[in-house]
Amino acid sequence: MNEVKSGTLFGVGLGPGDPELMTLKAARILSSTPVVAHFRKAGRSGHARTIANAHIRADIIEAAFEYPVTTEIDFREDGYVSAIRDFYAASANAIVAHLQDGRDVALLCEGDPFFYGSFLHMYDRIKATHPVMVIPGITGMSGCWTAAQAPITYGDDVMTVLPGTLEESVLAKHLTETDAAVIMKVGHNIEKIKDALRTAGRFDDAIYVERGTMAGERVARLSDLGDCAVPYFSIILLPGGRGRRIA
Amino acid sequence: MNEVKSGTLFGVGLGPGDPELMTLKAARILSSTPVVAHFRKAGRSGHARTIANAHIRADIIEAAFEYPVTTEIDFREDGYVSAIRDFYAASANAIVAHLQDGRDVALLCEGDPFFYGSFLHMYDRIKATHPVMVIPGITGMSGCWTAAQAPITYGDDVMTVLPGTLEESVLAKHLTETDAAVIMKVGHNIEKIKDALRTAGRFDDAIYVERGTMAGERVARLSDLGDCAVPYFSIILLPGGRGRRIA
Repeated sequence: MNEVKSGTLFGVGLGPGDPELMTLKAARILSSTPVVAHFRKAGRSGHARTIANAHIRADIIEAAFEYPVTTEIDFREDGYVSAIRDFYAASANAIVAHLQDGRDVALLCEGDPFFYGSFLHMYDRIKATHPVMVIPGITGMSGCWTAAQAPITYGDDVMTVLPGTLEESVLAKHLTETDAAVIMKVGHNIEKIKDALRTAGRFDDAIYVERGTMAGERVARLSDLGDCAVPYFSIILLPGGRGRRIA
Repeated sequence: MNEVKSGTLFGVGLGPGDPELMTLKAARILSSTPVVAHFRKAGRSGHARTIANAHIRADIIEAAFEYPVTTEIDFREDGYVSAIRDFYAASANAIVAHLQDGRDVALLCEGDPFFYGSFLHMYDRIKATHPVMVIPGITGMSGCWTAAQAPITYGDDVMTVLPGTLEESVLAKHLTETDAAVIMKVGHNIEKIKDALRTAGRFDDAIYVERGTMAGERVARLSDLGDCAVPYFSIILLPGGRGRRIA
């Protein structure tokens, strides 16, 4: 009986979108890994795949996992949880099949693999049985505050990261108690987020960022945005500065 | 009269410490900029300078700004504020002199330039009069949660970043209300931070990380650390997970 040494799963952080904001380490791993896996919306080429494109050799095995449902569906809806759980289980099995055959797998991750995102579902399923290595990446929020030319934290500032999916009263409470904030997952939550910012007296300071560091980047004061539909992955920033030690 | 076109100040994020966790863009800027500036403790080679070393050409002009006081001194102490303000003003003047002569300047920044740190003091002094470009970097906290193999946020988790310099009651309140937390600037604040974690019922979940992604990296459960002196730039992590949507 042959014992094949397990391959390693690499969670490769690709950064916020600009391919040049990938790390040297991520570029090295991508160019030397025989299997590249990524998640994407059905029918799309996949955003992570686009960022990584220049570093992926033509002769690799590619595994694209297509989400069965959109992230915009409320996760409490019937069918969502079971559909997505089955999808993650099947994706993990596909990765494990490569690892068992001794092939390393690079799983492409927008942003940082350990900061939200689908990689965690693979990590939690695979780490107990196979080697996993994570390469950190610049988060989407860092890309957005850089795009907005908005330093996010000074000195003793507290910063709070808030999913826009939270209830309005919860958002407002956190926004009242923090110096700086980043609100993720905006999409159809935007009017609720605006109301929470108004309740906290912070609406006029908020900055809206869409596609930070990428083609089509858009930065605006939230108060200038007007009523319009915005993407789920846009971000709202509340820059700090109250914690400055030295003026 | 000759009009010299101003140079550009680049705030170059170097990432958390491992030189391979620098971005492709940071490496490109460093290898093509005639002046490299950095902050360092008096008498040290400088941590940022060490990370960047492989990308800095021998023929550049180098400007090392040595802090007149240590970051461990309480900023409310007599003399601290005026000494450090004078130091930042003189450092900004030295950078501006190069920019006025038409030379680009790369200012080395550990982590991400817009996320805490000394770069902001240069940015606020220079941005109105000279072009400034920021290259984001992986934050120290991302490096630490990667080193600890500790996913920091899932699904709808709230994450709060807290300077360990805050009062114990303020720390405890934030720790009670958040899912995930990162406590920076630990140093001599460690016993106060432990007490705040105990008050919030989160002490047993906390992870201590020193020199994440670097030589001498140390990861431990905070409860196993015992009573000992720790560096100012160590980090305490409280991983999230309560916001998981899919088990």
